[in-house]
Amino acid sequence: MRELIEEIFVTALRNPFLDTSVDAVQLPHPEGQDLVVTTDGFTVSPLEFNGGNIGSLAIHGTVNDLAVSGAVPKYLTLSVFLEEGLEIKLLQRVIGACAEAARACGVVVVAGDTKVLGRGECDGIYLSVTGIGFRRRDIALGISQVQSGDRLIVSGTVGSHGAAVLLAREEFGFASDLASDAQSVFAQAQALLAVSGVRFMRDPTRGGLATVANEIARASGMTVHLSETLVPISDSVRSVCELLGFDPLYLACEGRLVAVVAESSSEAALAALRRVAPLAAVIGKVSAGQSRVILATRFGGQRLLDELEDDPLPRIC
Amino acid sequence: MRELIEEIFVTALRNPFLDTSVDAVQLPHPEGQDLVVTTDGFTVSPLEFNGGNIGSLAIHGTVNDLAVSGAVPKYLTLSVFLEEGLEIKLLQRVIGACAEAARACGVVVVAGDTKVLGRGECDGIYLSVTGIGFRRRDIALGISQVQSGDRLIVSGTVGSHGAAVLLAREEFGFASDLASDAQSVFAQAQALLAVSGVRFMRDPTRGGLATVANEIARASGMTVHLSETLVPISDSVRSVCELLGFDPLYLACEGRLVAVVAESSSEAALAALRRVAPLAAVIGKVSAGQSRVILATRFGGQRLLDELEDDPLPRIC
Repeated sequence: MRELIEEIFVTALRNPFLDTSVDAVQLPHPEGQDLVVTTDGFTVSPLEFNGGNIGSLAIHGTVNDLAVSGAVPKYLTLSVFLEEGLEIKLLQRVIGACAEAARACGVVVVAGDTKVLGRGECDGIYLSVTGIGFRRRDIALGISQVQSGDRLIVSGTVGSHGAAVLLAREEFGFASDLASDAQSVFAQAQALLAVSGVRFMRDPTRGGLATVANEIARASGMTVHLSETLVPISDSVRSVCELLGFDPLYLACEGRLVAVVAESSSEAALAALRRVAPLAAVIGKVSAGQSRVILATRFGGQRLLDELEDDPLPRIC
Repeated sequence: MRELIEEIFVTALRNPFLDTSVDAVQLPHPEGQDLVVTTDGFTVSPLEFNGGNIGSLAIHGTVNDLAVSGAVPKYLTLSVFLEEGLEIKLLQRVIGACAEAARACGVVVVAGDTKVLGRGECDGIYLSVTGIGFRRRDIALGISQVQSGDRLIVSGTVGSHGAAVLLAREEFGFASDLASDAQSVFAQAQALLAVSGVRFMRDPTRGGLATVANEIARASGMTVHLSETLVPISDSVRSVCELLGFDPLYLACEGRLVAVVAESSSEAALAALRRVAPLAAVIGKVSAGQSRVILATRFGGQRLLDELEDDPLPRIC
């Protein structure tokens, strides 16, 4: 069993750094750049959904946290918790998806560890991924950089990941072509970084766009205004949300970023971003006022987008 | 719940780098040194045992993988999987132990993530830790450096961690002062590195000393000779092993290292090591011959120390 697992991992993830015989791996790193690190655990249920599985999700999620920080993602470590009796084919699909996503993102899994747990001690597979990247020293992004007048940009339709996982959970009796948006946002982040005036970027995962907007409002002490008609939402996500009673603004994305950009740079930023993300849109702005998020609804009204009190969708990522 | 958890983590682990509001953290790193990385998952059962808990174990285990690689451990990331309903006091003890061990090891937890799982989806707490360290470029350790005639040194008594976890699992009806040896081996590793002729170091965790000896034999293609009378084993570990039918040579240590040292350096290495690890001992040697491990028993006989076929003690670390 242990040998089989090791073979699956090593075969799929093979690269010049991965060496299961060492306690720690030595990695080249560029001089004169900042070391940037992130870590995340993944427990999505079900393990597979339209557009990906826990493996591809874990790679994209980690790469994206580095990308929105302005770093170039480079190395990942992968720690795996497996439930005894897990179907080997499923494990192969998950680790295969890790490998494929890592290749697509231009990163390598340089170290790993697997723990096998008894039946009932783990729900299939959990993954922990740590990402290491490097960032040019002249890049200064941060939520504290946000200023009154800044524009909010989103890089594409929102909510597809959350909706795809929801649909995978149950048989709702209707067909949908809805797939998770899980992908790298590195090209999107780099496109924006080529334009001056980008203050802050974040990928709207758990809690979705509304949660990132609230984080910006809270950190800046200002009001974030969003316009419902400007937020790109696919028809299929809209239908699913209407049927199941979810608000797409709170659903997780795994291949989108939200950027806060100086007003004077917003046109240039949008144009640059659209070259790699055609559905990118300016969706709102920041203005002096109370710390809150106001949505101008498509019916001409306004409503507050509150912070999530607790997690309505556990195990979405 | 989520706020409470965050408060527990942030309060215990506070340091200048840890910032829960960022996607990825920026870290200073020394120029002209190698970046060295390791990752490990921890699922020990029970969560607490004499001499530590899963939190201190995870920190020591990760720091030690860097230390035996010749690196100076510097940064850790901590990914936590929690079972809903876990006693908050227990979580505080575990994270408190993480913090205390990190301080003692001179490392900081720079990034973290917590996922809360439903009841029955996780057995209490699992941890994944990634360790980042830096190594002088002139340090060249590796199992491939091992040569015929080299001596094996162990830095203290073996098997205490495994025996302590075993005792914590059940009520065996006898008292023992036996505590896990879990601690940093960084000072031990550095003491050895100050001596020339050190080829390779490893901490004998899962599978114990016998497993490290087998790894050396397999990698070198040579015979490792160990002498039972030279291996330091505490009386309490010996008693527990005799009562429960375990071989202390296969029990996990979490605060010891095994070093392979050139014959000509072995006295100097032992003397240096004993300054920080008084019970360190030369326990055997490597010689040309078949790839295997031979133990000279205390009764004057010889026996093969086989590789473990499967894990007789799951969830020991």
